[in-house]
Amino acid sequence: MKTRIYVTLKSGVLDPQGKAIQHALDGLGFAGVEGVRQGKLIEIDHADNVSDDDLDQMCRKLLANTVIENYRIERG
Amino acid sequence: MKTRIYVTLKSGVLDPQGKAIQHALDGLGFAGVEGVRQGKLIEIDHADNVSDDDLDQMCRKLLANTVIENYRIERG
Repeated sequence: MKTRIYVTLKSGVLDPQGKAIQHALDGLGFAGVEGVRQGKLIEIDHADNVSDDDLDQMCRKLLANTVIENYRIERG
Repeated sequence: MKTRIYVTLKSGVLDPQGKAIQHALDGLGFAGVEGVRQGKLIEIDHADNVSDDDLDQMCRKLLANTVIENYRIERG
């Protein structure tokens, strides 16, 4: 079973990596880019008996820093 | 307009970051995790007139290394 977890920075948090991408896109001549944010996509292959609560705990304990990041779990 | 771009490693490519996450989950006592792969999620805010082709070019020229990575564009 495959689950995808999306970890994104909360909206108030500065994202220098995203800014760097935005500037690079400008430098390459792409017009119309107003903002870029970079997050993480984590794909977990797991046994069927791993519960939603287990996945939530994995996010809280390891995968996301909930002070500055949001996460979204998409069970496959 | 917001577009999400998902960049993932191709299947044959080693992913030490994913392995590290898998080992850490094991160490935390989560059973049943069979594999972890880490990718990137890039959210781009852009003007409506940015075309699909522009977004594809952004991926090819900057956001993904197409030798080792796949990308998927999801227009918002």
